[in-house]
Amino acid sequence: MIIPVSSFITSKTRLSPFLSVDERSNLLRCMLKDIIETLKSEDISDIVITSKDDDVLSYAKSLNLDVFKESEHECDFLNLALLETIEYIKQTKTDSQILILPADIPLISTENIQYIKSHFKDFIIAPSRGGGTNLLYISDHEFIPEFGEFSFFKHQIQAKKREIPLNIYDSFFLSLDINTPEDLGELMLHGKMTQTYNYLDKINIKVKNNHGKERLNVYRK
Amino acid sequence: MIIPVSSFITSKTRLSPFLSVDERSNLLRCMLKDIIETLKSEDISDIVITSKDDDVLSYAKSLNLDVFKESEHECDFLNLALLETIEYIKQTKTDSQILILPADIPLISTENIQYIKSHFKDFIIAPSRGGGTNLLYISDHEFIPEFGEFSFFKHQIQAKKREIPLNIYDSFFLSLDINTPEDLGELMLHGKMTQTYNYLDKINIKVKNNHGKERLNVYRK
Repeated sequence: MIIPVSSFITSKTRLSPFLSVDERSNLLRCMLKDIIETLKSEDISDIVITSKDDDVLSYAKSLNLDVFKESEHECDFLNLALLETIEYIKQTKTDSQILILPADIPLISTENIQYIKSHFKDFIIAPSRGGGTNLLYISDHEFIPEFGEFSFFKHQIQAKKREIPLNIYDSFFLSLDINTPEDLGELMLHGKMTQTYNYLDKINIKVKNNHGKERLNVYRK
Repeated sequence: MIIPVSSFITSKTRLSPFLSVDERSNLLRCMLKDIIETLKSEDISDIVITSKDDDVLSYAKSLNLDVFKESEHECDFLNLALLETIEYIKQTKTDSQILILPADIPLISTENIQYIKSHFKDFIIAPSRGGGTNLLYISDHEFIPEFGEFSFFKHQIQAKKREIPLNIYDSFFLSLDINTPEDLGELMLHGKMTQTYNYLDKINIKVKNNHGKERLNVYRK
């Protein structure tokens, strides 16, 4: 199980200036906690957080998580870091199942995890909006992560080339990563049980229906 | 099985001026054809199209579908029309299962229909983005449709009041209704097998990745 986390400070810039730097940092911590809690409630505790940000790594340690510090890469750092982390897991863990989740999907449900657990022999991929990948379960460890632009389709092409039968996991709640103010609205609607919701509620984020270009009108009181 | 269709001419205004009136009308026809084809491929053919638009009704008849003309209502016409159509189905059909689908979910998959067919005793609801409902399967016919603002939650509250056990169907592909140019982008990415894709491709709609406020940059060549 790998959760790559980018910097608390420099990530989620599409939420700026709607949320301040500190608020975005708090949001990331809450989302990570929600994901970890869902995993642990389904007895998945062998979790490695990978990041190149020391703040992230010390926060992950404070949650009793295993951490892997990414090397500095000039480009495509996420996929290179994931490959390094996969290597680290192979060398250090007895159970080397590889499940990669982004750190910004706080609506991940126990049903989502149960699904993965009951399909542990498959190669599983779940879409995000915009053509990305929000869950990648690699049964064949020679698979190379290709996160980034339209990765949902790149991963499928690679699986086909490697002749790995593919299980496309069709999940709405997994598809909801948090990048824009409108995404916060989806979280406010569907995530009332999450710590992320409690935090956004505390800082007075509200959501209304909208009939304009966006579905939701997300604002502060 | 009920598919409510609003007017070909006046609907999907959030796609204007990106698509002309004629193009929006063609888009609606294609989406309807895709949904019907998916249903028929899973042996669901007892389909009633409900609309108050004569163009829609005569088009549906040309596809050999049963039609129900909505009465004129001053407000909340969709839910009143659905209630009338449910009454019509009860009186005229031997199999009076009620499945309500919107006309703008061309990515609905055969797996989605198989899921419904294998859970025919449940009350099933699937979310759309923005808090709406993109699938409602009513096993208890006293249930009153409440489509419109945040209907996903209104439907759940009603089910709870009526003590109907609820099956929330977590599907990404069902959640993708087509209302904005960005939605066309999702369709272009995931819907290569659909007639809707072929039509959008024919009129030169293209999609690129985007790192701005929207995930996809949808444009015309």
